Amino acid sequence: MTLDIAKIRADFPILSRQVNGKPLVYLDNGASAQKPQCVIDAVTTAYSMEYANVHRGLHYLSNLATDKYEAVRGIIARFLNAGSEDEIVFTTGTTEAINLVSYAWAAPRFEPGDEIVLSIMEHHANIVPWHFLRERQGVVLKWVDCDANGDLDPQAVIDAIGPRTKLVAITHMSNVLGTVVDVASICHAARARGVATLVDGSQSAVHMPVDVQAIGCDFFAITGHKLYGPSGSGAIFIRRDRMAEMRPFLGGGDMIREVTRDSVSYNDAPMTFEAGTPGIVQQTGLGVALTYLMDIGMDKIAAQERRLRDYAQQRLSGLNWLNIQGNSASKGAIFSFTLNGAAHAHDISTILDKRGIAVRAGTHCAMPLMAHMGVGATCRASFAMYNTEAEVDALVSALEFCHEIFG
Amino acid sequence: MTLDIAKIRADFPILSRQVNGKPLVYLDNGASAQKPQCVIDAVTTAYSMEYANVHRGLHYLSNLATDKYEAVRGIIARFLNAGSEDEIVFTTGTTEAINLVSYAWAAPRFEPGDEIVLSIMEHHANIVPWHFLRERQGVVLKWVDCDANGDLDPQAVIDAIGPRTKLVAITHMSNVLGTVVDVASICHAARARGVATLVDGSQSAVHMPVDVQAIGCDFFAITGHKLYGPSGSGAIFIRRDRMAEMRPFLGGGDMIREVTRDSVSYNDAPMTFEAGTPGIVQQTGLGVALTYLMDIGMDKIAAQERRLRDYAQQRLSGLNWLNIQGNSASKGAIFSFTLNGAAHAHDISTILDKRGIAVRAGTHCAMPLMAHMGVGATCRASFAMYNTEAEVDALVSALEFCHEIFG
Repeated sequence: MTLDIAKIRADFPILSRQVNGKPLVYLDNGASAQKPQCVIDAVTTAYSMEYANVHRGLHYLSNLATDKYEAVRGIIARFLNAGSEDEIVFTTGTTEAINLVSYAWAAPRFEPGDEIVLSIMEHHANIVPWHFLRERQGVVLKWVDCDANGDLDPQAVIDAIGPRTKLVAITHMSNVLGTVVDVASICHAARARGVATLVDGSQSAVHMPVDVQAIGCDFFAITGHKLYGPSGSGAIFIRRDRMAEMRPFLGGGDMIREVTRDSVSYNDAPMTFEAGTPGIVQQTGLGVALTYLMDIGMDKIAAQERRLRDYAQQRLSGLNWLNIQGNSASKGAIFSFTLNGAAHAHDISTILDKRGIAVRAGTHCAMPLMAHMGVGATCRASFAMYNTEAEVDALVSALEFCHEIFG
Repeated sequence: MTLDIAKIRADFPILSRQVNGKPLVYLDNGASAQKPQCVIDAVTTAYSMEYANVHRGLHYLSNLATDKYEAVRGIIARFLNAGSEDEIVFTTGTTEAINLVSYAWAAPRFEPGDEIVLSIMEHHANIVPWHFLRERQGVVLKWVDCDANGDLDPQAVIDAIGPRTKLVAITHMSNVLGTVVDVASICHAARARGVATLVDGSQSAVHMPVDVQAIGCDFFAITGHKLYGPSGSGAIFIRRDRMAEMRPFLGGGDMIREVTRDSVSYNDAPMTFEAGTPGIVQQTGLGVALTYLMDIGMDKIAAQERRLRDYAQQRLSGLNWLNIQGNSASKGAIFSFTLNGAAHAHDISTILDKRGIAVRAGTHCAMPLMAHMGVGATCRASFAMYNTEAEVDALVSALEFCHEIFG
């Protein structure tokens, strides 16, 4: 059962536009994915005909907006196979989600010398909040390296867990190398040792089915804008028992039960962790995006993207002046690369752009990994379910042109 | 020079819809305002034709999205008359903005016994973050009451400033009573005493011209969804010297300069305080909303709403079984009220809704004020620039019907 890619592409209006006089070849999906018409329509309808603030209104529009907004909690729970929608906290994305865990769970309980185990492949969103704890309260960061292929041995992560380890915070899929990490093995071993686990699902949840119960993690963060949803949407799965250990993070309306001059008491979880007027329309749009993905089928998307990865890998490996970072057998359709010779990643990106091909150049919010790999900056072509073999060919052709210029 | 209200109403598609078979009379603007077509179109266009992640891309769409997104900083600076756009930090709204000040500026510098002066009219968003500091580090909250009219004497606030006072955090306009506070007198007096000032501009900025330099505050927070902009948008003005005193709050991409295994250094302000992929499309939409407002003219909007307030006040004061909370001469077009007799605010709201009239019922995220006023819950009719005298009449007629039923 293959996907009807032409049909899927037709759902995304931006994919029919031109850039610099050429058809857009959008290979910057690792940074953010494009939006299907159903998501755009949901946003437009919400603002045009169904808008009001949620939760504390009693009028028709407020009830309508609240029903649509709150239904998304169940959709996310289903998307992640959480045991209950009460284990889903809405956030503005993975960055806020991981900061929530850092401020609300870790900061009040970590002592100087307590350790957090991280992989070297983490995105800054899963590094900087922990550096805060290092700077502010003497927490120790323990890094586990990947090998030259970009593989991360789960046993090496497990072996890094010591008596002072309080948390393993690890990516499910490297946004640079595409490596998919065996987070289930890590999380189960950590739990057996009484150590909490946070999985950064920003990249992974877009490309494969996710089952947080099978993974066995305590925290699993997703970001809506990479999941074909609106910017500023997202959520985090938090196991019920961990949620009970958290103190409030952002203070404001909706997350309280009672406020007086001298006291404050808090709303039940998960609302404890959702302060103020939320991203009503964004989350509603995220619900539509996830429903769209589940209707297609995440297993089918994964299979389609494996085919695309194999084709891209085969074509790119034929370019013997191209150095691809990350060749894990597990890897998804993300290709970071440099060219032999003087060509800087930024120059390559600019040349590709002239041909309508959007890739990203830089350190991809993963500076420790880049240092480990010994590269300063790379180009990254990151594929999504709507990309085609013809787009791989366009990329290869444009890279050959770069090689001619700079080679 | 009066506004052409019919023309303005035509800009808001939702205002032509019906609710429960009646034309929508939307009087819940204090909770959130409706969106003009230009904002909806900006959002639709962004997602349909111009979407990419910002800042770290080099391709056409990323540059386009970045240019549009970053231009909003200048628009907000102009809207608030900030001295520089570098004094504008993007947030998801006022709640995040005030938490930013609490976590990034106040928490690291306040000692046990240090005081925060608040008015009794504050919204929970400007209370709960300070309760956190009370709970977590022994900060003392000092409350200044308003009088029975809902007026807040600026001198009473100034007199509450003592040698241990580190911050005055005060609303510019009560979301319950409509009272406009003389924040300029308070802020100038506080500055003369070396005390920082935070003004919650959530309500005020929608209804009158704001000049943060004339006010003389250190922090001024606004929320986009009340300003006819998208949900999840917002910003805070922070005076340059205060910003220099802040440590980072949310950690992640974009707010860093360099990340290694053992260290992290931070980006320049204001980016220091903007972590991860931001609400790209929401902020772009907020820029369009503020431009729309400035094109109309905030002074004209203020004048129009004063006329509407006067008319509503005259009509509502004719109902001698209606108790209006807040009768300050300064007040805006916000009317919170209860009915004599057994009618609960929620019942009134439900009956009004049957006539298509959207008001809010409850404690309006202002429990300390409600306790001070001696009311449990009120109905609140909050007007915006697009509301009409005919809508006031519809409200009055529906209230008379409520009075007949419950009277």
